[in-house]
Amino acid sequence: MVKKVVIIGGGAAGIDVLELLLRGKEGAEETEITLIKEEREGFFSSCGLPFALQGMYDIKDLVLFEPTFYIDKGVDFRTRTEVTSINLEDSYVRVDTGEDIKYDYLVIATGSKPFIPPIEGTNLERVFTLWGRKDGERLKTVMEAEATSNAVIIGGGLIGLQATVAFSTKGLKTTVVEMFPYLLPSILDVDMGSIVQKWLRKDIDFILGKPVSVIKGKQYVESVTVGGEEISADLVLLSAGMRPNVDIVKEAGIEIGENGGIVVDQSLLVKKGKSYLSNVYALGDCIEVTDAVTNHPRLSQLASTALIQARVVSNNLLGISSSYEPCLSPTVATISGLQVGSVGVTSETARRYGIETKAGGTIKYTKARFFPTRKLILAKLIFEGDTEKLIGAQLISEETVAERINELTLAIKAGITATDICMRERCFEPSLTMVEDVIVDAALKAQKQE
Amino acid sequence: MVKKVVIIGGGAAGIDVLELLLRGKEGAEETEITLIKEEREGFFSSCGLPFALQGMYDIKDLVLFEPTFYIDKGVDFRTRTEVTSINLEDSYVRVDTGEDIKYDYLVIATGSKPFIPPIEGTNLERVFTLWGRKDGERLKTVMEAEATSNAVIIGGGLIGLQATVAFSTKGLKTTVVEMFPYLLPSILDVDMGSIVQKWLRKDIDFILGKPVSVIKGKQYVESVTVGGEEISADLVLLSAGMRPNVDIVKEAGIEIGENGGIVVDQSLLVKKGKSYLSNVYALGDCIEVTDAVTNHPRLSQLASTALIQARVVSNNLLGISSSYEPCLSPTVATISGLQVGSVGVTSETARRYGIETKAGGTIKYTKARFFPTRKLILAKLIFEGDTEKLIGAQLISEETVAERINELTLAIKAGITATDICMRERCFEPSLTMVEDVIVDAALKAQKQE
Repeated sequence: MVKKVVIIGGGAAGIDVLELLLRGKEGAEETEITLIKEEREGFFSSCGLPFALQGMYDIKDLVLFEPTFYIDKGVDFRTRTEVTSINLEDSYVRVDTGEDIKYDYLVIATGSKPFIPPIEGTNLERVFTLWGRKDGERLKTVMEAEATSNAVIIGGGLIGLQATVAFSTKGLKTTVVEMFPYLLPSILDVDMGSIVQKWLRKDIDFILGKPVSVIKGKQYVESVTVGGEEISADLVLLSAGMRPNVDIVKEAGIEIGENGGIVVDQSLLVKKGKSYLSNVYALGDCIEVTDAVTNHPRLSQLASTALIQARVVSNNLLGISSSYEPCLSPTVATISGLQVGSVGVTSETARRYGIETKAGGTIKYTKARFFPTRKLILAKLIFEGDTEKLIGAQLISEETVAERINELTLAIKAGITATDICMRERCFEPSLTMVEDVIVDAALKAQKQE
Repeated sequence: MVKKVVIIGGGAAGIDVLELLLRGKEGAEETEITLIKEEREGFFSSCGLPFALQGMYDIKDLVLFEPTFYIDKGVDFRTRTEVTSINLEDSYVRVDTGEDIKYDYLVIATGSKPFIPPIEGTNLERVFTLWGRKDGERLKTVMEAEATSNAVIIGGGLIGLQATVAFSTKGLKTTVVEMFPYLLPSILDVDMGSIVQKWLRKDIDFILGKPVSVIKGKQYVESVTVGGEEISADLVLLSAGMRPNVDIVKEAGIEIGENGGIVVDQSLLVKKGKSYLSNVYALGDCIEVTDAVTNHPRLSQLASTALIQARVVSNNLLGISSSYEPCLSPTVATISGLQVGSVGVTSETARRYGIETKAGGTIKYTKARFFPTRKLILAKLIFEGDTEKLIGAQLISEETVAERINELTLAIKAGITATDICMRERCFEPSLTMVEDVIVDAALKAQKQE
């Protein structure tokens, strides 16, 4: 019997499910797949946008697949198409042409949309968000225009700071405004956030710990007011986080959680009323996950999270029972040549959930101290106070951060303690590592904390 | 009461114990430490020698500590001193001046010495080994002499290949002779070893799968004969592995194992007759460890192994009960800009111990495929056939190998399976990683193997 799967959304989550279903199809029950997305590209990598703005490649290089790539594989791949409603009773979705598309299994991967802070002036021209190809192209045109000389970024998160580097590199006078008193507050503690701030170009202005009160202008933006101070702006980037895109989902009666994301069970099935539906999955930026440290629900809007969830959904669709585990959301990014990484909880998050901690932060070389190409690396490890189990890690260096974050993700998952970290084997060769690694020093330092 | 600790040997193992004892001394019982070593330096990093030969820094930069550094901390630090015998009954060691030094606790860290293959001609001048400062300085003088134009390296292991790069870079016609039919046989499978060979400079000759029959010359070496072929040589490097340095240990009646290393228990106490002594520890290149995959004894002659063992010994000496666990020996090295890493068993070792395996090897980028600074990376993962638990990993790339080996070391230790690898979170950002990592691809490939 033919099994009809409809996927709503063609961002990382939807495309990952599609690709995994195509890979796993041989030998399985016959499957017909429809994917419906609003954008015109087959797959566009939004994560690559900040570096395109920095001039590392063209925005068009981020179109990784054209629709024909999937159509040629027999997929009913519909671009520039919007799903206007979901009918759970009769198992179909309605699209903006009026057509109804039946499904046996529905996959909701509607993603997220930039959060627009509730302040006056966000609708002015040259106030941008950075999500998708269109946003990127419009922003690039304006940032490169001769008349543009002042940029204000609202939000000191990863994407905001990566865009900041682009603006600053292009010679714009650039100001970052962040409501929290330090940069990258969702992934770093204040001590580590300050180091990122010091690393950034000296010509970038930071206004921290104050919210924007108004964006002013006539047709085009002219200024941003923060704490009574009015900053000139020819261009504003709103980079204040993403919100789950769940309007049609909510209208269909599917349960939405406290963080605005879709509630799912371990199989990633959605909930309606008192029970989980047996044929409607959701994944990606639009759902809530369980935090592996706090056990509380939260969002995890990462392409890497979407990929693992897509394995769970595609396995379940292919008849391989699969569960999604609580989430640690390892995160990494390059900001002006500096790699910043984080996994698990920050000290602030631990405090908020009443978790006692011992933390150790230290600085060391990445390679033997006699090796000329060594770099500095900063590591902060956060352990649960009584058990000394690792629950969070933050790293900053010009190299080796991403792979270390992957190791520490596994360490948290495996229940590794501070003592385990000191007694574990690590590889050593002077051109590549120190024999006593910065991670070990950080663990030793945390253990000494009373 | 004063506790008197005598350490024999001032390589990585001995110095690590010394430093950890000094760090841990506060609050502990009063300890007097004597360290006895034959070399004149406080601590010399032999691991750094190949890069000094390549011209990255001076050999003298590898003297990381002068003896005064330790003497100033109150250590009885004796250089240029040889221990000639150990008296276990009366708890003293005799040194070459005739003096007897009493101990309450003895730490044997006598290290290893280069294996000299049993062939004619190894005693000729300009036939070198590469261990310690003297070896390095003599070899450097000869390799840089104008009359030197042909070099032969006997042994295609890590140190041999790193020296090969040095010789080749200096313009010598360089030939590597390896008895095994491929390079790096102790850490790589044949497919991965061949890739290292292809990467190396085209002007290096390799003679694989054949032993050296004789080294010829009058006063100085003139040629090396391999499989009937005579190769001109102005300089020969013997790089055929290291042997535990245990002559005085054996004479004292301490048990030596099947691999020529000292037998120790989990506390790293040595054995005499039927029982383990309560006050004599051994660690480092001179001992046998238990392999964490095969459960068989073997050597693990790595500075990183010595550090962990030093933690066990120093903890036990400081009254903190500590055990040394079976060993995985993660290994990494840079060879001509290529990073080569390995942990756990190779396919050949698994075969030798009758372990059924599933292996998957693949090649991918280190970063998003649209990112200009991406590099290629090759990964081979070896899983136990029935359980699909990871038991070995081999990696080759110009970047990120060392940190990945550390992650995979933890993965083997934590009992991670091929499925776990695919379902685990990894961080993603296009300038640093691929969303679907090469390790995941290798695990998927291994699972498809029948």
